[in-house]
Amino acid sequence: MADINSHLEIAPSVEPVNVTTGPIRGSRKIHVESPRFPGMTVAMREIALEPSAGEPPLRVYDTSGPYTDSAVPIDISAGLPKLRREWILERGDVEEVQGRAVKPEDNGQLGPDRSGGVPGFAHVPQLPLRAKAGGNVSQMHYARQGIITREMEYVAIRENLGRKQLKEAAARDGNDWGASIPDYVTAEFVRDEVARGRAIIPNNINHPESEPMAIGRNFLVKINANIGNSAVASDVASEVDKLVWSVRWGADTVMDLSTGRNIHDTREWIIRNSPVPIGTVPLYQALEKVGGVAEDLTWEIFSDTLIEQAEQGVDYFTIHAGLRLAYVPMTAKRVTGIVSRGGSIMAKWCLAHHKESFLYDRFDEITEIMKAYDISYSLGDGLRPGSVADANDEAQFAELYTLGELTKRAWAQDVQVIIEGPGHVPMHKIKQNMEKQLEVCGEAPFYTLGPLVTDIAPGYDHITSGIGAAMIGWFGTAMLCYVTPKEHLGLPDRDDVKVGVVTYKLAAHAADLAKGHPAARMRDDALSRARFDFRWRDQFNLSLDPDTAEQYHDQTLPAEGAKTAHFCSMCGPKFCSMQISQEVREFAAKQNQPLENFLAAEEAEKGMAEMSEKYRLAGSELYLPAAE
Amino acid sequence: MADINSHLEIAPSVEPVNVTTGPIRGSRKIHVESPRFPGMTVAMREIALEPSAGEPPLRVYDTSGPYTDSAVPIDISAGLPKLRREWILERGDVEEVQGRAVKPEDNGQLGPDRSGGVPGFAHVPQLPLRAKAGGNVSQMHYARQGIITREMEYVAIRENLGRKQLKEAAARDGNDWGASIPDYVTAEFVRDEVARGRAIIPNNINHPESEPMAIGRNFLVKINANIGNSAVASDVASEVDKLVWSVRWGADTVMDLSTGRNIHDTREWIIRNSPVPIGTVPLYQALEKVGGVAEDLTWEIFSDTLIEQAEQGVDYFTIHAGLRLAYVPMTAKRVTGIVSRGGSIMAKWCLAHHKESFLYDRFDEITEIMKAYDISYSLGDGLRPGSVADANDEAQFAELYTLGELTKRAWAQDVQVIIEGPGHVPMHKIKQNMEKQLEVCGEAPFYTLGPLVTDIAPGYDHITSGIGAAMIGWFGTAMLCYVTPKEHLGLPDRDDVKVGVVTYKLAAHAADLAKGHPAARMRDDALSRARFDFRWRDQFNLSLDPDTAEQYHDQTLPAEGAKTAHFCSMCGPKFCSMQISQEVREFAAKQNQPLENFLAAEEAEKGMAEMSEKYRLAGSELYLPAAE
Repeated sequence: MADINSHLEIAPSVEPVNVTTGPIRGSRKIHVESPRFPGMTVAMREIALEPSAGEPPLRVYDTSGPYTDSAVPIDISAGLPKLRREWILERGDVEEVQGRAVKPEDNGQLGPDRSGGVPGFAHVPQLPLRAKAGGNVSQMHYARQGIITREMEYVAIRENLGRKQLKEAAARDGNDWGASIPDYVTAEFVRDEVARGRAIIPNNINHPESEPMAIGRNFLVKINANIGNSAVASDVASEVDKLVWSVRWGADTVMDLSTGRNIHDTREWIIRNSPVPIGTVPLYQALEKVGGVAEDLTWEIFSDTLIEQAEQGVDYFTIHAGLRLAYVPMTAKRVTGIVSRGGSIMAKWCLAHHKESFLYDRFDEITEIMKAYDISYSLGDGLRPGSVADANDEAQFAELYTLGELTKRAWAQDVQVIIEGPGHVPMHKIKQNMEKQLEVCGEAPFYTLGPLVTDIAPGYDHITSGIGAAMIGWFGTAMLCYVTPKEHLGLPDRDDVKVGVVTYKLAAHAADLAKGHPAARMRDDALSRARFDFRWRDQFNLSLDPDTAEQYHDQTLPAEGAKTAHFCSMCGPKFCSMQISQEVREFAAKQNQPLENFLAAEEAEKGMAEMSEKYRLAGSELYLPAAE
Repeated sequence: MADINSHLEIAPSVEPVNVTTGPIRGSRKIHVESPRFPGMTVAMREIALEPSAGEPPLRVYDTSGPYTDSAVPIDISAGLPKLRREWILERGDVEEVQGRAVKPEDNGQLGPDRSGGVPGFAHVPQLPLRAKAGGNVSQMHYARQGIITREMEYVAIRENLGRKQLKEAAARDGNDWGASIPDYVTAEFVRDEVARGRAIIPNNINHPESEPMAIGRNFLVKINANIGNSAVASDVASEVDKLVWSVRWGADTVMDLSTGRNIHDTREWIIRNSPVPIGTVPLYQALEKVGGVAEDLTWEIFSDTLIEQAEQGVDYFTIHAGLRLAYVPMTAKRVTGIVSRGGSIMAKWCLAHHKESFLYDRFDEITEIMKAYDISYSLGDGLRPGSVADANDEAQFAELYTLGELTKRAWAQDVQVIIEGPGHVPMHKIKQNMEKQLEVCGEAPFYTLGPLVTDIAPGYDHITSGIGAAMIGWFGTAMLCYVTPKEHLGLPDRDDVKVGVVTYKLAAHAADLAKGHPAARMRDDALSRARFDFRWRDQFNLSLDPDTAEQYHDQTLPAEGAKTAHFCSMCGPKFCSMQISQEVREFAAKQNQPLENFLAAEEAEKGMAEMSEKYRLAGSELYLPAAE
């Protein structure tokens, strides 16, 4: 372990890393106990409502980890508490290993322009864990043996959000396009979904800080936020800050896509401080190790990088193993060629060597590595379309078929899999993506970037992609990879990350609503009741971004009194429809009859009858002739 | 006319109104001549590309009017040139009338708290026009007589954007859900669509400053921006500025929803300076005239307000005539009651008097007024849902049926009609709205607000609604009413207006793409080619908001050289997939064979065959059994 810490000498002064902590306004962290595993609790967030609401607090899904828990002290340099460490050890199938020594090239410190670095993470905790020789510690492996793990139980409680108590769960309303969403999520259901490959629980045994979560079509739709520095911008403090900031607003997983120097150390800081699963594209680091020359990549460098990251605790790897040599020419006529970084690197390698991709050829060996740490595959779509012109083309679907083949090969070793998807796709071609993926990949969870439904709005691509994301989420995509306003233009900053996360959170929620997810509408209804009752604070607190909602309100009506006023600056007091609508109800009440009985029943029916009579008379002629 | 100008004495000092003028960056105004009407030209915008592109300039639809025309001097206090004045007079069916004198209550100057005012518009031009006694000057009336007006010709040229020259028009790709979009728009097609009621050209004869445009399912999807002051915020200078700002970014029509004082004068400033049709909700001003007491509204005050606004030049009126007394009780169980301002006012009136709505009872008289000025109906959905809980309920659809009945009554007098739609609707219930509207309203154009697909994101409702807007636009909605980030929270400012307009512009364009509108993809493809070629300036200029795109890019790479760099800060130079993808093509070229021939044909086929063989072998078993 001395080696791992040795880079501290390179940059001994640890800059303070500032992150946002404390509860999200109007809410508090709660911990719901597991009936199955005494003492084990599941974190949720509870939003209190004003007494006048006469409603209980609303529980919402919470990805923010201990950062919003007033009871937990936060020390970024020490990392988060290791929630799952004991769960992993008690299964008795792992062992501590000496681990791979960190090399200078892991942090890009080879070559003349490579001086300097970021502070190493001081508290690298203990020896890395690995499955005992020949073992398999994947959740899928347990699931297929009929074992319900603590992780599965955690997921079940988390997904339910107290759904059992709700009457609303009975009144489901939606179109789930053939999904199998249960009224109530049991741990057994989670186990079955993981066993069938329809859901994954990404949980590297070396990332015990993470709170278990599931990605699958029959669970709530999840979102991923990408962070990471590039060769020209950002630093480790910014990246840890972006991590904490993105989980605060709802990121279910975070991908560290760093590509510059100090990749190893940056990742260590991120994983040790992340309450959500972390994904990476190991190819990026491997390429840095060969000085950016794709042709120089080798299986040895790549597999060594997998072990490096596996021991750090990366929860899922994007592996572009579906891009085969034969598919590269299919991109020749495209408007935007190959727009996946990993895809373009592998295409270059394949052409330069005129050989099949080593990711494809060595796929089963990669799987061997992954099962020893419970790392999930995110099978990358290296040939995803980068423009609406290239959507749903031969290259894209050829690769998808290969991803289907690889899914089955991974499953043969009980390794968990999700499938990455496009990209840029106009609305009328989105559904085909979902249908083909379900068919070809055996219902492995789909994980899509957007898709962007038009190319003409750089600066607003969180929105062009949010449209596609909401739609494909409705159709069945299990996790939506966010896009920020900076997409195509530059590296997102903190503000961009928040806008991206909130946009995708609303898209995912819109998908849950449309799928008819039980109890998904509870939050909408609570907020709408608050709106109708002019409980402004409740409206703010129930929203995805209470701070922005209040700030917008206060721009024109900052006074404290305006928080209880029966109007806002949009329409003013006299034109507030909600206020008038309430007056209508009060008027009816004054007549000693509720509004719904205000018209005598026969009178109301007369009105309806007259209306429908008129419609019937005109009914056969839907429009008047063009000329008399 | 002396009366009309007399209020100048109330506020003689005209504050300068500042608006943004000059071309949108990288583009210029062009004027395309009509072959049918010599000398008549149609305004468009042309975006020049860098010489290295080897592409002609791209023509785009342009709503910005003379404000972006370097050749036209702008004087807000004088108003815009009267483009259509001569067209209207040459038809010989109108006459100048003395007009209605402006009364103090038109500007809300009755009552003790009503002192002060805004500057009157000095150059009120000439006497208002009206159809000669008993006449009908609506575009629908001309269309049904087989007359092709200049307005129809203008629309045809404008919608085509030089489509005739394009090869792309041949390769249509989309799903238009049964629309009848032609390959090429002729004036005869426009006439036919207007005659059938499937499109409208909103063009009050007293608003000759406007450039004709069409709203219809078989034309490009349009967007509306709402502006207007409320009793608690904004002033006339801000509103004129918002008008010019919203048409600069693409608003096809603008609604003036002012509700405070000075409504008449504010509207005059707006209409005289608007190159796009202006809509209003006359009920708002009528309510101001009775001191905000809904019960005090009368037909006399309302119809007088219609004439006041008709003479000013309002192009379409939102009339909530479909909200009948019998439907009010249907809202009793709703989560958010009645959320339309007009709807709640009329509901209150109906209940208070226990009488049928005078808008419904007097509908044919309203139509009589409208046909004398060519004002179009926008039949308001006073019972639209204000929360996802209330979507597609009995109240909403009962009113829609009545709107269908009223459509036929308006058409019987050759008056143009569009139908307003929701509101808050989860994704799975959107399509039903479009289908019912088409069926019940005889294909009259649908004009929807959003719909918002979830209630939980105040502060981001331009996005929650942009998702629904793109979808319903694809399904057939002709015009999308924008929603700004301030929705539900406050009156939008200038920045909010721009964000709302650009969001809806991209949603409308996404709908055009998905419908397979001929040549809609030209702009996407031109931008994507620019992106792939690292023509950063072209990428900015071709985008909906060039200023924001460049600003985002420059936040990390401001140097001039970065505008031609083959990367951006997002991935840095080594990880730019587009750069690598180009290197792949260059590599192939160096081998003296294009990429698509790089593999011998039989070799490529071998790869494909092998892949599909493997898939076939595994094909019947889509996932592995849960346990061995």
